[in-house]
Amino acid sequence: MNTLLKRYRAVRQRSAALAAPLSEEDCCVQSMPDASPVKWHLAHTTWFFETFLLERHERDFQPFHPAFRILFNSYYNGVGDKHPRPQRGLVTRPALHQVLAYREQVDRRMERLLEEAGQQPEMLSLVETGLQHEQQHQELMLTDLKHLLSMNPLLPAYVEASPPAAPPLASAAWQEFAASVVEIGHSGPGFCFDNEQPRHRQFVESFALASRLVSNAEFLAFVQDGGYADAALWLSEGWDWINANALQHPFYWRCEDGKWAEFTLHGLQALDPHRPAVHLSYFEADAYARWAGARLPSEAEWEHAARTTHDFGRPALHPAGAGDAAPGMMAQMYGAAWQWTLSSYAPYPGYRPAPGALGEYNGKFMSNQYVLRGSSCATPEGHARISYRNFFPSTARWQFTGIRLARSL
Amino acid sequence: MNTLLKRYRAVRQRSAALAAPLSEEDCCVQSMPDASPVKWHLAHTTWFFETFLLERHERDFQPFHPAFRILFNSYYNGVGDKHPRPQRGLVTRPALHQVLAYREQVDRRMERLLEEAGQQPEMLSLVETGLQHEQQHQELMLTDLKHLLSMNPLLPAYVEASPPAAPPLASAAWQEFAASVVEIGHSGPGFCFDNEQPRHRQFVESFALASRLVSNAEFLAFVQDGGYADAALWLSEGWDWINANALQHPFYWRCEDGKWAEFTLHGLQALDPHRPAVHLSYFEADAYARWAGARLPSEAEWEHAARTTHDFGRPALHPAGAGDAAPGMMAQMYGAAWQWTLSSYAPYPGYRPAPGALGEYNGKFMSNQYVLRGSSCATPEGHARISYRNFFPSTARWQFTGIRLARSL
Amino acid sequence: MNTLLKRYRAVRQRSAALAAPLSEEDCCVQSMPDASPVKWHLAHTTWFFETFLLERHERDFQPFHPAFRILFNSYYNGVGDKHPRPQRGLVTRPALHQVLAYREQVDRRMERLLEEAGQQPEMLSLVETGLQHEQQHQELMLTDLKHLLSMNPLLPAYVEASPPAAPPLASAAWQEFAASVVEIGHSGPGFCFDNEQPRHRQFVESFALASRLVSNAEFLAFVQDGGYADAALWLSEGWDWINANALQHPFYWRCEDGKWAEFTLHGLQALDPHRPAVHLSYFEADAYARWAGARLPSEAEWEHAARTTHDFGRPALHPAGAGDAAPGMMAQMYGAAWQWTLSSYAPYPGYRPAPGALGEYNGKFMSNQYVLRGSSCATPEGHARISYRNFFPSTARWQFTGIRLARSL
Amino acid sequence: MNTLLKRYRAVRQRSAALAAPLSEEDCCVQSMPDASPVKWHLAHTTWFFETFLLERHERDFQPFHPAFRILFNSYYNGVGDKHPRPQRGLVTRPALHQVLAYREQVDRRMERLLEEAGQQPEMLSLVETGLQHEQQHQELMLTDLKHLLSMNPLLPAYVEASPPAAPPLASAAWQEFAASVVEIGHSGPGFCFDNEQPRHRQFVESFALASRLVSNAEFLAFVQDGGYADAALWLSEGWDWINANALQHPFYWRCEDGKWAEFTLHGLQALDPHRPAVHLSYFEADAYARWAGARLPSEAEWEHAARTTHDFGRPALHPAGAGDAAPGMMAQMYGAAWQWTLSSYAPYPGYRPAPGALGEYNGKFMSNQYVLRGSSCATPEGHARISYRNFFPSTARWQFTGIRLARSL
Repeated sequence: MNTLLKRYRAVRQRSAALAAPLSEEDCCVQSMPDASPVKWHLAHTTWFFETFLLERHERDFQPFHPAFRILFNSYYNGVGDKHPRPQRGLVTRPALHQVLAYREQVDRRMERLLEEAGQQPEMLSLVETGLQHEQQHQELMLTDLKHLLSMNPLLPAYVEASPPAAPPLASAAWQEFAASVVEIGHSGPGFCFDNEQPRHRQFVESFALASRLVSNAEFLAFVQDGGYADAALWLSEGWDWINANALQHPFYWRCEDGKWAEFTLHGLQALDPHRPAVHLSYFEADAYARWAGARLPSEAEWEHAARTTHDFGRPALHPAGAGDAAPGMMAQMYGAAWQWTLSSYAPYPGYRPAPGALGEYNGKFMSNQYVLRGSSCATPEGHARISYRNFFPSTARWQFTGIRLARSL
Repeated sequence: MNTLLKRYRAVRQRSAALAAPLSEEDCCVQSMPDASPVKWHLAHTTWFFETFLLERHERDFQPFHPAFRILFNSYYNGVGDKHPRPQRGLVTRPALHQVLAYREQVDRRMERLLEEAGQQPEMLSLVETGLQHEQQHQELMLTDLKHLLSMNPLLPAYVEASPPAAPPLASAAWQEFAASVVEIGHSGPGFCFDNEQPRHRQFVESFALASRLVSNAEFLAFVQDGGYADAALWLSEGWDWINANALQHPFYWRCEDGKWAEFTLHGLQALDPHRPAVHLSYFEADAYARWAGARLPSEAEWEHAARTTHDFGRPALHPAGAGDAAPGMMAQMYGAAWQWTLSSYAPYPGYRPAPGALGEYNGKFMSNQYVLRGSSCATPEGHARISYRNFFPSTARWQFTGIRLARSL
Repeated sequence: MNTLLKRYRAVRQRSAALAAPLSEEDCCVQSMPDASPVKWHLAHTTWFFETFLLERHERDFQPFHPAFRILFNSYYNGVGDKHPRPQRGLVTRPALHQVLAYREQVDRRMERLLEEAGQQPEMLSLVETGLQHEQQHQELMLTDLKHLLSMNPLLPAYVEASPPAAPPLASAAWQEFAASVVEIGHSGPGFCFDNEQPRHRQFVESFALASRLVSNAEFLAFVQDGGYADAALWLSEGWDWINANALQHPFYWRCEDGKWAEFTLHGLQALDPHRPAVHLSYFEADAYARWAGARLPSEAEWEHAARTTHDFGRPALHPAGAGDAAPGMMAQMYGAAWQWTLSSYAPYPGYRPAPGALGEYNGKFMSNQYVLRGSSCATPEGHARISYRNFFPSTARWQFTGIRLARSL
Repeated sequence: MNTLLKRYRAVRQRSAALAAPLSEEDCCVQSMPDASPVKWHLAHTTWFFETFLLERHERDFQPFHPAFRILFNSYYNGVGDKHPRPQRGLVTRPALHQVLAYREQVDRRMERLLEEAGQQPEMLSLVETGLQHEQQHQELMLTDLKHLLSMNPLLPAYVEASPPAAPPLASAAWQEFAASVVEIGHSGPGFCFDNEQPRHRQFVESFALASRLVSNAEFLAFVQDGGYADAALWLSEGWDWINANALQHPFYWRCEDGKWAEFTLHGLQALDPHRPAVHLSYFEADAYARWAGARLPSEAEWEHAARTTHDFGRPALHPAGAGDAAPGMMAQMYGAAWQWTLSSYAPYPGYRPAPGALGEYNGKFMSNQYVLRGSSCATPEGHARISYRNFFPSTARWQFTGIRLARSL
């Protein structure tokens, strides 16, 4: 069996596996406009293959269902109409089992296509894009589901078993880097999104980067020091936002009788001081850094530093702690939490979006968002990359987002 | 078997029967804050018996689930906290089957209670209130579901079969009534809500009432005459509302290629000129009446007229036409569509709300709503009453609401 | 000089006199969409005469300024376009002195018209409507200005001198009325608005009405008894409204160091226990009545009671107290504060709006508002009438609105 | 007389001179939350000297008026409370003449202070900051006033005389720059704001910059080519924004009978094809650039290019055209319109905000805004600088903002 076909099957099966413990109801509901139902993710990732692969390359193409063309288009104006995003959760029909049947039929047709015509480079590249796309949605399936479960007063768990205990955490160290012209962006073979190119030069003044992410214990100290009540620590816009929404701690934290707990995909858990603080907005990350006498890194700094020794985390439903990392090791660069940078999401010099409707994948979102680097515990195995640019608005809190501190030297 | 027990079973079974054709997903989703999920209706009506009957009268009362006390409280501040209304659709757990188990357990306990202690008048009255309450929610189950299905681009039907054909419609006649002091409000034995009392006197100047509801054909003439574009026909607030929302026809109507259709619980159907126009807001009803050189009736006028000969409709998923009613007959007083009156929802002179938390049932909603009289095709058999006061805000359009014209003589 | 001309001059001069103590800036600014600038009131009342009198009856009519036709139209769709209400305060030009020149020119032309053609009944009636209209705006000039000054942190006074001291207040008595058919609505000669007609019959069950308005001392007892924190006292909509806006006392009240004060047109004044509580919304009036074991009157009850002995207040910038009224006397029926009724603003049976654009004066506002009866301290002398129907939405608080309690017997 | 004193007088007098042609009303009103009344600008700039100079350095300091401390604080949390920004226009008292008296008194005291103690470096620096601050507000006085006048249906002019005719415009040329490490940021002596520092290195890949701004003729071609209707040209957020607001052309443009005109401080003027397109948002600038096959420059590119030959414009109420610039000349770098860059407003590496409350001047606004470079026709003489960083959100349109195109080579 060819490699891509094998990979195709593995990725597609993982999506279904993520949904397996869930009921029809769990898969149908949308808890906020930013989040989508699991059923929608299952259908939309299938739509992607149907639209960009089957429709272009299959002889006598017939859509599985004409209405799905609109229903499961996310945001590609170039492909035609689309169902309004805030109404994704209103679609009780097609039922979950019909969406699973949609997946099966498209998979059968995709496999035939891959067997017949699978060596055409353009098609290989499109299939790989489709799989990377599906992996992105696998992460969203978990974060969107987490948000939905958190809105339920019963605080149900996705998986009942508790996460493994986190080892005691050592202090963070500062890793120093000299000023230099660095190259960033994707190079060489292997897949990347269009926004990671072209590889280009940036000048980086000398800086230091923390050897691990900010922990729950550290962020709790900020909370208990009145961090959410001191205007001097916050960007003006962030200050207005936390006051308008009466925010006093991270999104999934709760304090009852003086004890802090955190909602996780394992249900409500005591706040573990040894794990990284997650589900932080850009504004909270920035305020924490100011309180700590530091700042957020730029994406060039992060990518430059990531070329040094580092470890990879493993996918999990909640981020592991850094424990007692080896000296000189950059811990938690990947696999724990996406790391906010102070770099706004902008095109690299010479950036060209992919041609056609796929050009809408990244470029049109390059305003008023910040780049996050690394990957999180919810990122599928093999999906992370040194040049990967994730991005969210400055108030987003439902992703596994954390803080790695930086300093100018 | 005692009568009340028999009635208890019949009413409770009808709720389950209404949900039977639906999937878990159909029952879980909330399509707007005003509407509730079918699952919520099934649970809340059960909560009502658990809270107002079992908790008060059962020995060693234990709630089915402590969290349900809050989760399925609709709006009774006197009973404690309540889950926010706009978030009713986010509760994917308990699952539908758990709510059905809740119903079954409460039913078993209620039946035992009814057998043991069923002759206490206070309890009988509370049980009857609970059944009337559940019947109200049965109507809402249908209207809320209709709204949900209408938000789906596939426009699925609740029941596939088409409604029976409507017979050709005769012209409406004006039934005249002389000025007099009339008595309105509930009297005699039988159940009523607190808002239907006390029976009291009102003076009604001479008036005439139309012998049937305004039909689709008649309302279409208003639409085609530019009714939605002529400020002189509208209340100021209604004019602002239709313009802000770009409204140009009734809620479930659609026009494609010059052909009018109407979304129904039977799916999309060609607009039938012989059926009554439904899903109209107070503002639309009032504007139509002005265009027709008439006005809406007051509730005293309606109740006075309803003492004359009239027919009763039969429950259906879509209102039947009035056909060729007998002379002197007031057709469609019940069983087709609720009829807007120009009477705002206010307490009758001497009104006293029921004691305790049940006093919140009606009285606290007596502001900025209009009374509707009669009943609709979705009203359960045996639920309608001459003194019945339904009420909705002036922009509500998702109920089966129509127009009966009146004139001062 | 003919009587109408004399009256014309007196009314018109009073508007200018009200504005005389104010600066250009005071007259220009709009403090909320519901309120209008004094300059706008001065211009709009002039526009009324220009549009409905001069344009129709003057030979070779030329508008003072073509743009004023739109700029100073309030809401008459039948007359043409209108400047958006929330933008009335953005019109810094024409300047105040130009609006005063507009007034002078129109007055000169109106006086000539009145001298030449002043005995035509239709014109006399239109002029009287224009004068009544201007008197309504004189009251609004004061209440809108009060709102503007209250938004200024310096809390400036319109008139510096303090109001005369209020005499000690005696307890309120209940005046009783037997059930009967009563006639309400305007009859006989003299001016009235179209909404006061036709005179018609209503049946009034037996009731009692309080002999004076609720006082500051009494309303303060409600506040201090936790009235704003007890859901059981409020209409559901009112409860949501006070919570969404964190309301805990009447609009212009303030509490500093345990001392209550009230913002008035005389500036901030200690809260006087002997004066009536004013600037109350319908929701507050209704909640107070429930707390006091009473209710609000209907407008038929009020009008029926007002035929008995009562006093008239005198125009002032703040309402006087009732003092120790004579037994059997209904105090403060007029001249202190408008009195909320539980009657929604609806057409009388047989109501016909005035013909033409003037038909928009009243009828199109008959939804979701409540009728207030009597008059306030800000109502111009000679403007009040037993059949007068004032109306505002249930959350309006910037008018001189108070409470007269009623009870069913 | 010392130089700073002379400069102090000149700057302060210019503010008063800008207000001189305006009425009290013109100076008082606020037309939207983003804009402030001219009177507020006059007072706030005075507050700045009172708070940061007199209060710190004057013996026996007494504030002019205690309430002004709060009333005219813009956003300095470190200084204490502040009056809410959207309510600046409600302050009809103090009157304009009182604010002018405030200015005079503070000027007298400042002049005494400058004469006595004017050689202390810290104070000199603070005074210079105050003057630069006032110059920024002078530009805002004009743009805020322009917005206010544009909201008046009469479209009044600030100055009646028409602007001088613009000479015919030559085609734009592309000026090329080789890749290199460049230094940007303020260096050497002379005033700068904290956000212009520290001077640091950036790597700039090779690029080309247009020799002049995009003209009205060119932007009109974009409009007429359907630029506002083609999703492919817009950032996703920008596309949603223009559709939600139904935008189809630049802010002050109007089209009547096929003729384009532009509202200016000289009143409505025919659209001049030879002048630069101004009052564009970031989204419009970005969409135009994409349509033109180009992009916006980064701020490093702009600052690097600005070291080459360029001209300075002259302050005016409307931007002049570039005419037929000399070859190799970068026209309109200054004095016509601020130029959007694709650089988000972020701290330079090593950035430190000024100490104390003045540290709130710039740093806390570094999120979700874009940097603009150069200066506009409304920028006071001597205020522009090569390292100057102006910043606005991506939807701001009421400033003199335009487009200089860039391309990667």
